[in-house]
Amino acid sequence: MRLVVIGGVAAGLSAASRARKLDPALEIIVLEKTPHISYGACGLPYFIEGQVKTLDQLRVYDVAFFARERNIHVRVNAEVRSIAHQRREVLLSNGERVPYDKLVIATGAKREAARRGETMFAIDTWSDAERLGAFLRDAKPKTAAILGAGYIGLEMAEALRAQGLQVTVFQRANYVLKRRDKWLTQIVAEHLKRCRVDLRLNETLEDSTRYDMLIAAYGLKPNVRLASEAAIEIGRTGAIRANDRMETNLHGVYAAGDCAETTHLVTGRPAWFPLGTTANKMGRVAGANAAGARERMPGIVGTSIVRVCGLGIGMTGLSPEDASKEGMDPVAVEIEALEKARYFRGRVTRVQLVVNRRSGQVIGGVVVGEDGVAGRTNVLATAVTSRMLLDDFVNLDLAYSPPFSRSWDPLLIAAQQLLKLLH
Amino acid sequence: MRLVVIGGVAAGLSAASRARKLDPALEIIVLEKTPHISYGACGLPYFIEGQVKTLDQLRVYDVAFFARERNIHVRVNAEVRSIAHQRREVLLSNGERVPYDKLVIATGAKREAARRGETMFAIDTWSDAERLGAFLRDAKPKTAAILGAGYIGLEMAEALRAQGLQVTVFQRANYVLKRRDKWLTQIVAEHLKRCRVDLRLNETLEDSTRYDMLIAAYGLKPNVRLASEAAIEIGRTGAIRANDRMETNLHGVYAAGDCAETTHLVTGRPAWFPLGTTANKMGRVAGANAAGARERMPGIVGTSIVRVCGLGIGMTGLSPEDASKEGMDPVAVEIEALEKARYFRGRVTRVQLVVNRRSGQVIGGVVVGEDGVAGRTNVLATAVTSRMLLDDFVNLDLAYSPPFSRSWDPLLIAAQQLLKLLH
Repeated sequence: MRLVVIGGVAAGLSAASRARKLDPALEIIVLEKTPHISYGACGLPYFIEGQVKTLDQLRVYDVAFFARERNIHVRVNAEVRSIAHQRREVLLSNGERVPYDKLVIATGAKREAARRGETMFAIDTWSDAERLGAFLRDAKPKTAAILGAGYIGLEMAEALRAQGLQVTVFQRANYVLKRRDKWLTQIVAEHLKRCRVDLRLNETLEDSTRYDMLIAAYGLKPNVRLASEAAIEIGRTGAIRANDRMETNLHGVYAAGDCAETTHLVTGRPAWFPLGTTANKMGRVAGANAAGARERMPGIVGTSIVRVCGLGIGMTGLSPEDASKEGMDPVAVEIEALEKARYFRGRVTRVQLVVNRRSGQVIGGVVVGEDGVAGRTNVLATAVTSRMLLDDFVNLDLAYSPPFSRSWDPLLIAAQQLLKLLH
Repeated sequence: MRLVVIGGVAAGLSAASRARKLDPALEIIVLEKTPHISYGACGLPYFIEGQVKTLDQLRVYDVAFFARERNIHVRVNAEVRSIAHQRREVLLSNGERVPYDKLVIATGAKREAARRGETMFAIDTWSDAERLGAFLRDAKPKTAAILGAGYIGLEMAEALRAQGLQVTVFQRANYVLKRRDKWLTQIVAEHLKRCRVDLRLNETLEDSTRYDMLIAAYGLKPNVRLASEAAIEIGRTGAIRANDRMETNLHGVYAAGDCAETTHLVTGRPAWFPLGTTANKMGRVAGANAAGARERMPGIVGTSIVRVCGLGIGMTGLSPEDASKEGMDPVAVEIEALEKARYFRGRVTRVQLVVNRRSGQVIGGVVVGEDGVAGRTNVLATAVTSRMLLDDFVNLDLAYSPPFSRSWDPLLIAAQQLLKLLH
């Protein structure tokens, strides 16, 4: 019995490792088209920023580790050209055929725009980071335009500011961080201004020659060419459609990671969230099921966190505007509160809390601040996942001691305010 | 219509303020027996430690504020001697009678042991802190014995170490922090050893003359004398029994704060948790209902957090041993994991996760570490409150980005390990 995995980063290696745990006898081959496997792609902007000193710091394991410790055969520079499911084999670019019994597709995402010129850079892969790092070192650019104000765009704004560049961010939409939300957009816009990053909303770059370099941080798409050519169903999000066992419409063929859809637990509908956490979870489930177990990936609630010039921004669930688009009746409140006492240098934390008026359930929220952002975002994510009522959320028994928090946590203050609006 | 509140710190002033919000016409009188109101008692150990420079930093509002901004008449040095409910009045020590229509009892807790000598100190009130601060300054003690290894005892161990004292902690029980748990006790014992605090478990102080000073950090009891003499029902925990509206067995008489019981949401039984967060919540509900609204205090899950010589320790729900005592079938796992990548100076976080095998629900947990402890504890508290199944907990969509966390959060790693034990 042989499992073939296409893709050797987060989802692919999670799948392979999980399959090995559950079935010591399975033959497992991972095919990675680049020379690099098993690295923390989310850390690439911090290599550019300087916090990560060498790309090797981002590597988790190497090929030898997988062979020795997990009996997994990882092949680098092994590009799959096509999948022939009827013959149960994949065809490599070099003409080689690799048969499989089970297949996991973890082909990730790609940016249409990337590498359209010598001074345009992406920061999605190891090679992207190498190339950009070398350019910064050798060409010493002074100005950069970043195209796109999603996570990567804003992380790169911080990274390039840290390298001393003048940075302009062009965002075609009127919101940032993929969240239709005026409140959040304004906070980010004001913060970027303070950090002397020039954010241009509703604008596309007209004259690219005005900047020494460009960062392509828009237009990320699931990489589904192989799947689609093999008659694997693509969902409405543009990513591979899979059930909650991460199996595609082809029996024995699984999809995981940035190329695949999962379910949004608030809307109940398919969603595409190309994030490392989701990729790892999907990979784990795909690998388990490919190895004969029965595991489920229930879905996600759209949680993410990003640091933008020192400011933490965490979000989960739906924004009021997104909830309205889903036909819900959202009510939201935004508050500011100290997250610790002043004598413990407590800073202002801002919280947006969103409930669905009809159900009374907490359906989303945003936390912005310098400290405690991940924890509060995760409390919101847990409440959203468990469909907690605002009436229960407002009474949450949260941890308090002066070095850590306040007697009324900002989350609870937001909930109290929101209750007033509802009653 | 007049509301009288006995007690002018957390619960009492929460009750008074909430009642005022809901009923602008109510006459509200708060009777506080000491000269000090509205201060953060949880911050007192940090005054001794030095982080809080003057006690005034712990004061939230003063008497004039309550008069001016909230039309609440706060009387200090006004000790209630008895409650005469049939006549609807309280009798003060000076002989004065104060009539009421509604009454909130927020008499707090007290330590039987405190002030049994010139070198024995408590740290429960403003005056305690003044007296101890003056002693440290004037007598320059070199050695201290702390009696009790609960929150206050261990916070005071840190505070006195910071002041350069040699500290010995005597704990009659074989566990610390009021949590019957060997794993946690061992972590705390080892950490205290590293911080050169001498923890003596299963030991009581024999010869108090061997130490320059003693801290009474044991034997805290709900202060229920007034209530009990007025035929108000006392629960099995020793605290005032109240329903979920915080009303006692006497109609129109409410209890809130460290003198009152609430419900433990995991066991479903009355519980006494003398903590600031719980006191504030109870006070808010008591005040609302006293003002004619109908609000509920559903209960608590026993969440707390404490800093012990720089180490954060958060806990919620039941320990395995406490769950067994409740007739549950607990299964627990303890793990260690980095809470961030090494290149972001991630430190080891330890997590204990407890589920009830019969229901599959998450019923408790402990988080220990230097960073992110409050947030992870609060995720656990939220999961425990919502009776989340481990099967759902393990799939929680938690926030990840390298400056904040890891792709597999320590909470999820613990959940994965625990799932293996269950299946």
